[in-house]
Amino acid sequence: MERFEVTILGNGSAMPTTLRNPSAQIVNLREKIFLVDCGEGTQTRFRQCRFNFQKLRHIFISHLHGDHCFGLPGLLSTLGLAGRGEELTVHSPAGLEEALGPLLRAFCDRLPYALRFEEFSGNQSELIYEDRSLTVHTIPLRHRIPCCGFLFAEKPLLPHLRRDMLDYYQIPIAWRGRIKQGEDYTAPDGTLIPHSRLTTPARPARKYAYCSDTAYSETYLPLIEGCDLLYHEATFAQSEAGQARLRYHSTAAEAAEAARRAGARKLLLGHFSARYPDCTPLLQEARSVFPPALLSEEGKTYAL
Amino acid sequence: MERFEVTILGNGSAMPTTLRNPSAQIVNLREKIFLVDCGEGTQTRFRQCRFNFQKLRHIFISHLHGDHCFGLPGLLSTLGLAGRGEELTVHSPAGLEEALGPLLRAFCDRLPYALRFEEFSGNQSELIYEDRSLTVHTIPLRHRIPCCGFLFAEKPLLPHLRRDMLDYYQIPIAWRGRIKQGEDYTAPDGTLIPHSRLTTPARPARKYAYCSDTAYSETYLPLIEGCDLLYHEATFAQSEAGQARLRYHSTAAEAAEAARRAGARKLLLGHFSARYPDCTPLLQEARSVFPPALLSEEGKTYAL
Repeated sequence: MERFEVTILGNGSAMPTTLRNPSAQIVNLREKIFLVDCGEGTQTRFRQCRFNFQKLRHIFISHLHGDHCFGLPGLLSTLGLAGRGEELTVHSPAGLEEALGPLLRAFCDRLPYALRFEEFSGNQSELIYEDRSLTVHTIPLRHRIPCCGFLFAEKPLLPHLRRDMLDYYQIPIAWRGRIKQGEDYTAPDGTLIPHSRLTTPARPARKYAYCSDTAYSETYLPLIEGCDLLYHEATFAQSEAGQARLRYHSTAAEAAEAARRAGARKLLLGHFSARYPDCTPLLQEARSVFPPALLSEEGKTYAL
Repeated sequence: MERFEVTILGNGSAMPTTLRNPSAQIVNLREKIFLVDCGEGTQTRFRQCRFNFQKLRHIFISHLHGDHCFGLPGLLSTLGLAGRGEELTVHSPAGLEEALGPLLRAFCDRLPYALRFEEFSGNQSELIYEDRSLTVHTIPLRHRIPCCGFLFAEKPLLPHLRRDMLDYYQIPIAWRGRIKQGEDYTAPDGTLIPHSRLTTPARPARKYAYCSDTAYSETYLPLIEGCDLLYHEATFAQSEAGQARLRYHSTAAEAAEAARRAGARKLLLGHFSARYPDCTPLLQEARSVFPPALLSEEGKTYAL
């Protein structure tokens, strides 16, 4: 199966610790790599994980809190020092270009590549990226400031042609592309051979949903329904549910509840508060609601 | 002897590597700590070295290149999250407040402490900090943009009173402070006892000079004369002297020449180019000019 993976660069929350880094992760679909959030030090971990960051074309920033953005000046600057020529697009809620502009002008005034900022609204799910094999939609979340997760969805795959049937019906090569695209075949004698007899369905397209930071809410569940992998913030344990509510964060049990109700196949917990040097209690709590839950680990890659 | 130490948090140059961090170091004089430069990730290394960064009152930034500044937003923000109340002053060449302002307003709009920016000119040496035991002067350097090193100088120490002589001349306790400050003693019968007979001189005050980034030049040598420890950039080996000249950096041999001519007691080399995973050749080159040269090591503390 074509590669579709997530590598965790940082899974800490706002208060940094010496154990965890602030939010950042790489989504790799068929060797196209995307950066999701960019906390301080992301460029170093990017390299430690042996990704070539010149292959990066799009960065997705969930919201304008420092632990999700403060690695941008260093990364953008280093890409320039390394002689990048290709355009780079940073997708974020409104305000990032304005906040970073003076800093970039003072420190990176002659970047050798085009840097584009694209803003999304945060009020409703939007298609913000699309290529031949992938779409990225925003997932509006409930945080103290406008904040969106991201849904990375493979495009539906074309069915497989059945060679035995193509031979049996002596279907000309010129027709094969049309059949793959969904057409029925009309034989020279007028007989119609239905598409379904000539093909086997492709495997289902895969979906990865990234939800950080957010208070638990039913509003975003339809947007992540049936995802193969859900990364959901689990800043607190259920015993700190009051803190979670107050700060618009989730507990591990709530993250698991979101995964369960959305029908996710797997759940990766992250965005852990500095108060948990050991997150085992969060894992236990999540597994009691949604058994396939996992604690995300920095530097580790998770295949969909 | 009272503590006077330098801890290296980062000794890399502009292009980050997985081996070295960008410039940052801590100067600790009698448990007052000062941060010198603040490359990306400084706050994490600050903690890894087990310093309490709430004790920080002054940050000195040598120049406005990203590898000396990009750790500031994260550090300033974290100090706020940790509930700091005391004022913090950032000393730098002109332009830092303007460059950081919009970012800080967007990301740290309610810092619970007063943040002051103080600018120095860079054209001539200025006194930019002073307390009971220390002065900090700028050291104008020769770089592509305005850039200053910093001279941390202990204030001259008071002489030690000789108890045997105080007893012998039966000098009243009230006089002791005046004698320590340099006065001669006048006995009730009018006899003058010279200060030098009543005291032994204090040890010489110590000086630490930080010179990064700079092309080698004689202009700054008088300002660092006789320092106990010199940290001098050594971005390149002598074989890359052309590159050093072009980019306003120094070679290891030039750093050693600066130490030799300034009469420094010890030399710490740093700000190494990413092209040297192993800096042994730089050390050999420096030692051929100035034998007490050392390669600085991240996480290591050097006493004056």
